[in-house]
Amino acid sequence: MGTGTGFDLVIRGGEIVTAQARFSGDIAIRDGRIAALGSGLAQGRKEIDASGLLVMPGGVDTHCHIEQLSGAGIMNADTFETATRSAAFGGTTTTVSFAAQHPGMSLARVMADYTVLADRGALIDHAYHIIVADISGTNLDELAALMRAGHRSAKIFTTYDKVRLDDLSILKVLDTARDNGALVCFHAENDGLIRWSVEKLLAAGLTAPRYHAPSHPRLAELEALERMCRFAEATGQPVMLFHISTREGVEIVRAARGRGAPVFAETCTHYLFMTEEVLDQPGMAGAAVMCSPPQRQPADQEALWAGLQRGDLQLVTSDHAPYRMDASGKFANGETAPFNRIANGLPGLEVRLPLMFDAMVSKGRLGPEKFVEVTSTAPARLFGLTGKGRLDPGADADVVLWDPAARRVFGTNDLHDNCGYNPFAGREVVGWPKTVIARGEVIVDEGQLVGTPGRGRRVVMDVSPAMRPVAPATWTPKA
Amino acid sequence: MGTGTGFDLVIRGGEIVTAQARFSGDIAIRDGRIAALGSGLAQGRKEIDASGLLVMPGGVDTHCHIEQLSGAGIMNADTFETATRSAAFGGTTTTVSFAAQHPGMSLARVMADYTVLADRGALIDHAYHIIVADISGTNLDELAALMRAGHRSAKIFTTYDKVRLDDLSILKVLDTARDNGALVCFHAENDGLIRWSVEKLLAAGLTAPRYHAPSHPRLAELEALERMCRFAEATGQPVMLFHISTREGVEIVRAARGRGAPVFAETCTHYLFMTEEVLDQPGMAGAAVMCSPPQRQPADQEALWAGLQRGDLQLVTSDHAPYRMDASGKFANGETAPFNRIANGLPGLEVRLPLMFDAMVSKGRLGPEKFVEVTSTAPARLFGLTGKGRLDPGADADVVLWDPAARRVFGTNDLHDNCGYNPFAGREVVGWPKTVIARGEVIVDEGQLVGTPGRGRRVVMDVSPAMRPVAPATWTPKA
Amino acid sequence: MGTGTGFDLVIRGGEIVTAQARFSGDIAIRDGRIAALGSGLAQGRKEIDASGLLVMPGGVDTHCHIEQLSGAGIMNADTFETATRSAAFGGTTTTVSFAAQHPGMSLARVMADYTVLADRGALIDHAYHIIVADISGTNLDELAALMRAGHRSAKIFTTYDKVRLDDLSILKVLDTARDNGALVCFHAENDGLIRWSVEKLLAAGLTAPRYHAPSHPRLAELEALERMCRFAEATGQPVMLFHISTREGVEIVRAARGRGAPVFAETCTHYLFMTEEVLDQPGMAGAAVMCSPPQRQPADQEALWAGLQRGDLQLVTSDHAPYRMDASGKFANGETAPFNRIANGLPGLEVRLPLMFDAMVSKGRLGPEKFVEVTSTAPARLFGLTGKGRLDPGADADVVLWDPAARRVFGTNDLHDNCGYNPFAGREVVGWPKTVIARGEVIVDEGQLVGTPGRGRRVVMDVSPAMRPVAPATWTPKA
Amino acid sequence: MGTGTGFDLVIRGGEIVTAQARFSGDIAIRDGRIAALGSGLAQGRKEIDASGLLVMPGGVDTHCHIEQLSGAGIMNADTFETATRSAAFGGTTTTVSFAAQHPGMSLARVMADYTVLADRGALIDHAYHIIVADISGTNLDELAALMRAGHRSAKIFTTYDKVRLDDLSILKVLDTARDNGALVCFHAENDGLIRWSVEKLLAAGLTAPRYHAPSHPRLAELEALERMCRFAEATGQPVMLFHISTREGVEIVRAARGRGAPVFAETCTHYLFMTEEVLDQPGMAGAAVMCSPPQRQPADQEALWAGLQRGDLQLVTSDHAPYRMDASGKFANGETAPFNRIANGLPGLEVRLPLMFDAMVSKGRLGPEKFVEVTSTAPARLFGLTGKGRLDPGADADVVLWDPAARRVFGTNDLHDNCGYNPFAGREVVGWPKTVIARGEVIVDEGQLVGTPGRGRRVVMDVSPAMRPVAPATWTPKA
Repeated sequence: MGTGTGFDLVIRGGEIVTAQARFSGDIAIRDGRIAALGSGLAQGRKEIDASGLLVMPGGVDTHCHIEQLSGAGIMNADTFETATRSAAFGGTTTTVSFAAQHPGMSLARVMADYTVLADRGALIDHAYHIIVADISGTNLDELAALMRAGHRSAKIFTTYDKVRLDDLSILKVLDTARDNGALVCFHAENDGLIRWSVEKLLAAGLTAPRYHAPSHPRLAELEALERMCRFAEATGQPVMLFHISTREGVEIVRAARGRGAPVFAETCTHYLFMTEEVLDQPGMAGAAVMCSPPQRQPADQEALWAGLQRGDLQLVTSDHAPYRMDASGKFANGETAPFNRIANGLPGLEVRLPLMFDAMVSKGRLGPEKFVEVTSTAPARLFGLTGKGRLDPGADADVVLWDPAARRVFGTNDLHDNCGYNPFAGREVVGWPKTVIARGEVIVDEGQLVGTPGRGRRVVMDVSPAMRPVAPATWTPKA
Repeated sequence: MGTGTGFDLVIRGGEIVTAQARFSGDIAIRDGRIAALGSGLAQGRKEIDASGLLVMPGGVDTHCHIEQLSGAGIMNADTFETATRSAAFGGTTTTVSFAAQHPGMSLARVMADYTVLADRGALIDHAYHIIVADISGTNLDELAALMRAGHRSAKIFTTYDKVRLDDLSILKVLDTARDNGALVCFHAENDGLIRWSVEKLLAAGLTAPRYHAPSHPRLAELEALERMCRFAEATGQPVMLFHISTREGVEIVRAARGRGAPVFAETCTHYLFMTEEVLDQPGMAGAAVMCSPPQRQPADQEALWAGLQRGDLQLVTSDHAPYRMDASGKFANGETAPFNRIANGLPGLEVRLPLMFDAMVSKGRLGPEKFVEVTSTAPARLFGLTGKGRLDPGADADVVLWDPAARRVFGTNDLHDNCGYNPFAGREVVGWPKTVIARGEVIVDEGQLVGTPGRGRRVVMDVSPAMRPVAPATWTPKA
Repeated sequence: MGTGTGFDLVIRGGEIVTAQARFSGDIAIRDGRIAALGSGLAQGRKEIDASGLLVMPGGVDTHCHIEQLSGAGIMNADTFETATRSAAFGGTTTTVSFAAQHPGMSLARVMADYTVLADRGALIDHAYHIIVADISGTNLDELAALMRAGHRSAKIFTTYDKVRLDDLSILKVLDTARDNGALVCFHAENDGLIRWSVEKLLAAGLTAPRYHAPSHPRLAELEALERMCRFAEATGQPVMLFHISTREGVEIVRAARGRGAPVFAETCTHYLFMTEEVLDQPGMAGAAVMCSPPQRQPADQEALWAGLQRGDLQLVTSDHAPYRMDASGKFANGETAPFNRIANGLPGLEVRLPLMFDAMVSKGRLGPEKFVEVTSTAPARLFGLTGKGRLDPGADADVVLWDPAARRVFGTNDLHDNCGYNPFAGREVVGWPKTVIARGEVIVDEGQLVGTPGRGRRVVMDVSPAMRPVAPATWTPKA
Repeated sequence: MGTGTGFDLVIRGGEIVTAQARFSGDIAIRDGRIAALGSGLAQGRKEIDASGLLVMPGGVDTHCHIEQLSGAGIMNADTFETATRSAAFGGTTTTVSFAAQHPGMSLARVMADYTVLADRGALIDHAYHIIVADISGTNLDELAALMRAGHRSAKIFTTYDKVRLDDLSILKVLDTARDNGALVCFHAENDGLIRWSVEKLLAAGLTAPRYHAPSHPRLAELEALERMCRFAEATGQPVMLFHISTREGVEIVRAARGRGAPVFAETCTHYLFMTEEVLDQPGMAGAAVMCSPPQRQPADQEALWAGLQRGDLQLVTSDHAPYRMDASGKFANGETAPFNRIANGLPGLEVRLPLMFDAMVSKGRLGPEKFVEVTSTAPARLFGLTGKGRLDPGADADVVLWDPAARRVFGTNDLHDNCGYNPFAGREVVGWPKTVIARGEVIVDEGQLVGTPGRGRRVVMDVSPAMRPVAPATWTPKA
């Protein structure tokens, strides 16, 4: 790296795209950071010609499962090495994955364990959401300490045995976050409605993968979203509602924001690009795309896009959750397991940006600035990932050089993760990341891995404006 | 009683008021039923001169606690004899109180036990809501059998230890009701928000009765109302939401009805005539008016009245829940118990109609037809209490003769229940029930009890139009 | 008629249906009024056996055009004799038609003219809405005097050349009504949107009757409904919004009522039973069913029914507006006139009740009580038509004996008006009015006209509760 | 200016603030444009030390009246020279004022006339909204030609005699904009409600300035906003709703955007910083702050801020409309003229940014990025003012150096316009523009005017994304 005087690297002649603007210009990098933007910049020690390319901040994926044991006890298919490699090949330079507590585990210990894993394998910078599944003992104190140390995001499940929290526990986690500066993220589905649906379906002998969809009725999402919005109001603590999948879900978020509740929300790639019918395939093939909440209807997709346009939804993530289509993953409970015994999730880290770019830029939906906003700038901003998601001088030099004219057809197993299949196989996209730069270092170039596993660093989260609590709508003791 | 040919009793010259109309006329009664309305009716064996009086269907109070053990293990102050006596003095001729299961009890047995109590003491006709607190074992089958036998109302608590049901159990009770024809009533407050609030208040040393109000935040009501509305949509099963106390609660009900959810709702006298400040009295005096949800703000009262006017709320009940201000009742946990250890509830069976008449008729708010509608006709109609709440020929001759000019000031202990105090002491009302007739028999006349305890009969509930399920918004097995 | 002692007529053994209840019983009539209801009633001078029949209040149709010159200068096809005869054959015993001012005419004179016409020909009782098209000169004073004399309904058009009022004039009519006790009814469509649409269609050479539908876009209705709701709020004056045809229209009414605006609304038979496709017929045939607003979509019909169920819409009328399919009516501007030069309207007085009964009772949608409510009781109550729409003792003895088992298929020209066609030809209905009684006198029996033209009397409108203004949302001078 | 090789000017060491980010760095300018941002930039021919200052894009005020004859025939107090001088002193470097047609005038001629005025006097760059008051003759064709020539904004009044358009004309202007790429801006108040209110007030003898408030009731705003939102839906043409002043107005905009209507909206400084009580001053003093719509209530201010935060409102303008407090302006109709004969408007070009900075940055409300967004970046983006409102390389070098620590108390006549008073006299603000740079040229420095009148150039509007029509909700001829 450089000495602080000259530029280490200058990317010349590209079309720079930020969340706000597009302009021709060069980007100069020094010491892993953006040093300058513009024209007439001095020569760098190294130069890259970006003619004909779009130059954008690297993707930030704030919802992905890496090297994580699921609530059902199945280890997912990726290590930090394979997952972050896959992310990098897709143009993503920062991940926020999960440090997952299971009941009985100490939160501090959980974080320590994940840190070892990430330090060993991560190719790119990364942070964690702390999954809180047990608030007994000293866990809330440990959570507070972790938040103050810059792990400023907790994640709560309202469903799934073993990991779900009851309402009182949720409120206590919200209190802890409010007092220590953090966001609280939710997998918000009503547990009772899901279990009730599953029981009916199984009782009727309906076990194929496609019955996963009715087993997670849209009302389960709606109810839990409404409840979490009320808890945000009650505590004044900001929440991030994960993976909104329904039209009415967007409306619930919009209504809550309209009455001043500190609510943020995302959707995921597969809700925008898949509908429920993907589950209806011969045999067990539908298992490959099974996730929760399930994919929905075309009208929901329209509503999600409209929600992104209006800002009701702020970001798009992958919810990357890789399980191989074998006994190590999807079929840990047998090759003919009923839908509710099959691991949920699909790979997404690598396809997220190409799919979104194709839709938003190549096909013209919402445009390139908004593409950068929802896939990079907004997730970095909301989660306080300082230095990420931007190209301003001083920001980390995480840059992707995108070829807007490249055409690709996804293959059946062309991703760089360890999942073994690409759920979007056969789909053509226009636009592809040509060169990926992380903190000034080229890590992927022309389809070749250049960077070294373990080079990624933990991103300390700052208290973002989104994390600031509002006045709670309930009585609170005087401070 | 008569033989079927002549009239047993003719009430002459009154101003008859129904839920729809007012007109001068006579009412003829035969065999305990209305035989005819009009003028030019033949002489009855007995005649009552109703000149200057309003002649209305007797009140129907579908929300009252009688001879019931609370979830906290405290027996309330009334027997069926004292409670129905109090009701009759206030112009009410039908009650629907609770047959309260506690965990471990058989529902069939619970109903049998309450039937013995009611048969022994009830002065007026009556039915029950079955409180379901435990669905284990054969209880859902017993519930179905009771519903088919005409006990067509279940009641569920979403809060209170021991009696509250979790979401999955609630859905199963809704299924049972849908398959057997019944309403499911809810005490809908979020348990977590209440416990969270109570903990904070107690931790801050705030134990006086007035802290009961912030311990049941309005958001606790809102959240649970939203959830129960979603469950009504999910199952298609009609629900009755008890004791709406807030402006936003009315809006939630209105919105749910607007999207076709089979939702009905009531408010109670004390929400219309008291605000939160009644809890703020010296010493423990506020305990006398403590109830859940708590009384709220003037703006909420306006919204409740508007909700009644528009039909968003369909009825007004008393939620009579009498506890003496001594160690047998309010202070079973000690005279200085913190707010959360004091029995909740206040007497209301006797004051409901006079308060409502004074407001609606004497003071002109919404008028006499609507008074009859919300206090008698609507509750009878919704709960399938055939023969009740109407003055049409063939209906039960439950009639109250109301003196619209009588003025009364409530005294400190002037009610005919066993509670020992009148929470509305000092308030003047204009209009008072002069003569109360139940199935053709005068039971209260000029302030004197005439009827005999035990004369009341159980009212078998028919499947009312309100009980008919709509299409569920979730997958359901083909019938 | 009788002397006041005995009964003139007793209708025995029917199933009596009111807006609230059903019960077996007899109805005794004396002096043209209901004397008594019930069983055990004394013998009448005349008796009718109603076994197997439903006995209901006669229909009240508060929206029909009779012997009226349209804004476009075309006299409609009916006289009071033919129109009220048609009404009576369909079970309707009260009409409220229009006394239509055109610019330059005195309102007092207009009313006098219509009174002569109605007195001469009306078979049944009737009242008028005063169409106000010109508020210049003394017209507002004349309007006030007419209202005080019991003509308590004005009608305003927001579209149609010559008759439409501008916003300021509308506000002044609302003021006049508020000060004198009346409802103000609206044909609410945005004039600009209609003219803009017509211009575009004609410019594109699209002149067939089916282009009438896009020429009155649903947004034209929505805009004008929103505006009139705001004017109701601004003045506090109750308004009746005529012929809601759209789903969003129901929502606008519902929202306005939700914020306390004094807004009432109706829909009409043809919006419930026809969709836009009826306009798309060969040649000019679609002209027969052309009306404004036009028929809409199936989803709108569902929303209208739901609005009736919830009470967002209070009543159903015919908007009877008969024009013959010849040069005297529909084709006054030529047989190939473009859609915008064809008279709008279709006959409905006679088919309204059979269609509604078939749907609501025979097919089970909302039930018989609600049928009586929306077609008779509610219109009478809202417009202060005292004595109408009810069967209570003292009410006018306007009674229809309905055979619920009779089946009819509408013919091409089987109505008793002067229009020459039945727009519902070919449709089968179950249920038919067998005997129609007006003020105690049989006027139609078994398909035979018995009553005499001219026997109908004007119904003086009382100030109904619906007419009471609420607090205006604008500054108002101190009274 | 420079030759294209070196930098003309480098602003060093400031804290750069954009709509998205803050960072320390330098800005290099060449040929009137931003050449580079960052650190390590080469020496400029001129250097400015910005230590301790915020460096932001100059303000863009897209709603101001300059050298314009009002509908009532009164010339406002400013020339382009005085108005743009005042703007510059307040940190604003771009204005969009009005080219105001009056009936009978040709639009092309109107634009030519204003161009002469602006070319002569404007200190800063500028564009125009074309006020359309007469669409007769060739005016719509002229409008289309002007739009295609880069005058991509029309303005319509729904009230005010002489200038207001009727609904049909409005729709035709919307059509013209849709076909040619432009925004259509609205002064949206219901003319009838205002005239009705004025008549009542004058009739009651209430003529003082404070009666201006009730003469423009909030319902007048709400009605017209709803109508224009419907017209936007009907045509699919984007509209900009000017000067939202009410809480419900924000909700109307929000609801319309929620259903996909292409609606944008602004509020103005005086609605955020003044309430209705400013009108209630002794004598005629209230005339100084009289504007339409009038200032409202504190609750409205909160709703406007919340609307800005959520993006329901996108920008804040001044609606600068200067009239001297003498016979040349406010009192052209006499010193004791009734409120409705007093010129509406107050000066705002110079105070807008200091007031907004004080509230948003110094007092912490929404923060500096959002300050830049709503006062500079968003107005430039929505109106297609290319090169304005940004600091990206290639953008016009319109830069303001802001001293965040400077304290000022507004004086009674300290503004640099020609209005003669400061309506915010006595108010202290923290933060003040120290140096104002326009296209690379310092025009105001340390309170001294440096630039030359007439140096400003017209900004050609590009078709912005906001100008793209959506699918109309009405029938439209096939293209």
